Amino acid sequence: MNGAQALIRTLAGSGVEVCFSNPGTSEMHFVASLDAVPELRGVLCLFEGVATGAADGYGRMAGRPAATLLHLGPGLANGLANLHNARRARTPLLNVVGDHALSHKRFDAPLESDIDSLARSVSGWVRRSVRSADVAPDAAEGVAAALGPPGGVATLILPADVSWSDGAEPAPPVPSRPPSVVPGPVIEDAAQATGCGRGDAAHPTGGSTCVILLGGAALRRPGLEAASRIAAASGARLLCETFPARLERGAGLPGLERLAYLAEFAQAQLAGTTQLILAGARAPVSFFAYPGLPSSLVPDGCRVHTLAAPGEDVCGALADLAERIAPDARPQAQPAERPALPSGELTAEKAAAVIGALLPDGAIVSDEANTSGLWLPAATAGTPPHDWLTLTGGAIGQGLPVATGAAVACPDRSVLALDADGSAMYTISALWTHAREQLDITTVIFSNRRYAILDLELQRVGAAAGGAAAQSLFDLSRPDLDFTALARGMGVPAARTADAGEFAGELRRALAEPGPHLIEALIG
Amino acid sequence: MNGAQALIRTLAGSGVEVCFSNPGTSEMHFVASLDAVPELRGVLCLFEGVATGAADGYGRMAGRPAATLLHLGPGLANGLANLHNARRARTPLLNVVGDHALSHKRFDAPLESDIDSLARSVSGWVRRSVRSADVAPDAAEGVAAALGPPGGVATLILPADVSWSDGAEPAPPVPSRPPSVVPGPVIEDAAQATGCGRGDAAHPTGGSTCVILLGGAALRRPGLEAASRIAAASGARLLCETFPARLERGAGLPGLERLAYLAEFAQAQLAGTTQLILAGARAPVSFFAYPGLPSSLVPDGCRVHTLAAPGEDVCGALADLAERIAPDARPQAQPAERPALPSGELTAEKAAAVIGALLPDGAIVSDEANTSGLWLPAATAGTPPHDWLTLTGGAIGQGLPVATGAAVACPDRSVLALDADGSAMYTISALWTHAREQLDITTVIFSNRRYAILDLELQRVGAAAGGAAAQSLFDLSRPDLDFTALARGMGVPAARTADAGEFAGELRRALAEPGPHLIEALIG
Repeated sequence: MNGAQALIRTLAGSGVEVCFSNPGTSEMHFVASLDAVPELRGVLCLFEGVATGAADGYGRMAGRPAATLLHLGPGLANGLANLHNARRARTPLLNVVGDHALSHKRFDAPLESDIDSLARSVSGWVRRSVRSADVAPDAAEGVAAALGPPGGVATLILPADVSWSDGAEPAPPVPSRPPSVVPGPVIEDAAQATGCGRGDAAHPTGGSTCVILLGGAALRRPGLEAASRIAAASGARLLCETFPARLERGAGLPGLERLAYLAEFAQAQLAGTTQLILAGARAPVSFFAYPGLPSSLVPDGCRVHTLAAPGEDVCGALADLAERIAPDARPQAQPAERPALPSGELTAEKAAAVIGALLPDGAIVSDEANTSGLWLPAATAGTPPHDWLTLTGGAIGQGLPVATGAAVACPDRSVLALDADGSAMYTISALWTHAREQLDITTVIFSNRRYAILDLELQRVGAAAGGAAAQSLFDLSRPDLDFTALARGMGVPAARTADAGEFAGELRRALAEPGPHLIEALIG
Repeated sequence: MNGAQALIRTLAGSGVEVCFSNPGTSEMHFVASLDAVPELRGVLCLFEGVATGAADGYGRMAGRPAATLLHLGPGLANGLANLHNARRARTPLLNVVGDHALSHKRFDAPLESDIDSLARSVSGWVRRSVRSADVAPDAAEGVAAALGPPGGVATLILPADVSWSDGAEPAPPVPSRPPSVVPGPVIEDAAQATGCGRGDAAHPTGGSTCVILLGGAALRRPGLEAASRIAAASGARLLCETFPARLERGAGLPGLERLAYLAEFAQAQLAGTTQLILAGARAPVSFFAYPGLPSSLVPDGCRVHTLAAPGEDVCGALADLAERIAPDARPQAQPAERPALPSGELTAEKAAAVIGALLPDGAIVSDEANTSGLWLPAATAGTPPHDWLTLTGGAIGQGLPVATGAAVACPDRSVLALDADGSAMYTISALWTHAREQLDITTVIFSNRRYAILDLELQRVGAAAGGAAAQSLFDLSRPDLDFTALARGMGVPAARTADAGEFAGELRRALAEPGPHLIEALIG
């Protein structure tokens, strides 16, 4: 068989079930081979940033990689921003990037470009297959590399002639490695840091100056419950990394405050901390630099302990630490509660209350609401258990694509995409894939007609507020975007409202009806 | 003054009048400084690919660079595909890419990425300013680098602290170099190749086996007229490179056949050629490789002569050659003629006839019609003089952005964006900038609801036609895109028709009315 046929069979055999695709000429043999392997489902995206973001959302929810199919350097380039986010999320994901035939590259044809450099900028693993017999084993290795641990972006560059040449055979899956076990002395060091170490067993106080910063796999139920037991026994405070890839939360799960995006607020959250334990999270840093402010958010004199780095078994480490210092403690459980349904003119705060009042059990939330999302964590804390997916790498245009992939991964769950108007426009064609695949996604556009975060940031960096020319670059009015027209143009039923009661009605209807919907929430 | 203030003054002083912008936090000082320098106009784009494509269109028409303002690595990444096209077009263009403060980079904050590698993949010149005192001279040098010759993409990476720190002063413009003069022996070699060389003056025959392939600056009136005189005197045939950045054409100008995109057709065009003279164009190569077909389109045994490479004075070389072998010849002029207005069910061919019948004098056409554009060259050949801008690098999503920039560069000219439905979706938010700036752009979407070129390419690469799974990846229906809704959602008046007469009426109205319009041409 040819390289493409062996590749597709190998992907399917390695557990890859979906390929988010935007193919071109150099990928035609891959496309032609799809019908023979129904285990690998091709999902068409109208822009590569949708494909890569969808693969990110899929990988976060499925825990195994989706593939993308991208066309040469420019196709990869269009997908890079969401691959950047996926890299930060440590999402398992395999790009298949078609390239010119090997014999064609020296002719510098119009689409020739430096694919390898682009791929390396976001990928932990890059391979260019140069013989059709290599494609299948390369792909199996790529899937294993994507799985990690920790998970990450892997990119297989597939020259057209390698794809169309015979002499290939499917390759067996490459076993993925389990995460590294955290050794006992590290557990013991963390125990000391909580004030519950061996030499200090009778001294449970001081715990509140210890913070355990949770990230990665620690943000699923087992890690959260172990951490909650540790906190209960030691008095240590728990915080969640600022932009979790996937956070399980809601009633019955341990509630968890997130470290603030704004460095000033994060500094306040961490003030007085003398021991900082990193459990799957990285040491906290300011998102941006600001004149006169430090980049590191670790308080002066605070000791930092890495209980588990990415790629290590953070849930096992938390379980071991809980067993060591809190054998009898019970995890705290967030009580069930929902906000009352508000009425009157819609605001971001009221929209959050409506979402908290109506969020379905088992929902998946793709959160790119940015400044409009400030009230969402509190409003949804006590709702039924759900997953919260955030903008891990700061590259906007992630929300709608990630929702796409999450819905493909979890067809039985309700997906909510909460998106700021400015961010949504980056990858708006994701709505078409929502409609094509009839995904059960309700998109809420928070329409404040500003890049509102830049108003804030302009002040924070100490720049003069600027006149009309500067302000016009933050202004999404003139003309106003009409997201209901955009949604209908891509086959997604849509409504728009500036009234809190109407918003609740629209959201209820959208959540009840299968398939995609969009609600434009006009907020002041 | 701070680095940003000095930078903006330097750009304006170096002749940069427009900055297509999608800023973020690290660019706030640049934005805040815009009001003080009204000579530099900020134009907001809702996606970086629109900004870079607009800068490409601007540079092609203005002959001097626009700036872009992009936010860190992901912002640059989103703009790369159209920078790839600009690189192939040799368009003068200066990217200003904000980066984290230098002191912040080691903390690997979420938005940290390898900007330099991304920039190098599309730029002939990359500079990272590391002191505020360096920013202005770096920018002046960047503008000169962009101007070339040949023109190209230059990228200035601007750390936030370099932008906000004092100690900077504006820098004077760096003079740009004139293109290199082509030496006499090269002119003489070309003269020989046409059959009109010194040793062969009495032997003007054999000229028809000589082809002069014109590209770059040769495609403006002076180059075309010189080439036409050479052809008239020698019998040599003229061809235009397949994807010209800017081709002047229409009644009164020498008409010029373009080398075909399909290698089979290009081979037929070049069959029998024994002498190939490159005048600003590169030696022709197949766009893609196909099993069993050669990559080079130069016929076996044909001698290739480079009269002028990019960066050399191709118009001067053509003038010298004309003076040498055709002192008395007159350029041919395309006669004025327009197609008759068709009626009945709209097809791509009829749409081309309507466009040919109505194209305004001095129009600028941004052509990304792809397979639907097959009939456009013939239908518009004898229309009033106009400029034709094409998809130079093959990265689709260029058409609407390039039209944006062309309209900003030439506010007194009518701009037509002719776009395939699939391509238009890549950077559809360009329509919002059309509305924001009230640009006189008429967008025609050729809506065949297919990636029709892939139907063709699937056969050409010899892949099996594929079943439903493969076909679904070429299919833009289910649901149908409604471009009138998309346009209205971004403030652009729109109409849609499947009737040739109605299409003519809508096009006439759109061209007559100032400001942007969109017409969705439903073609079978």
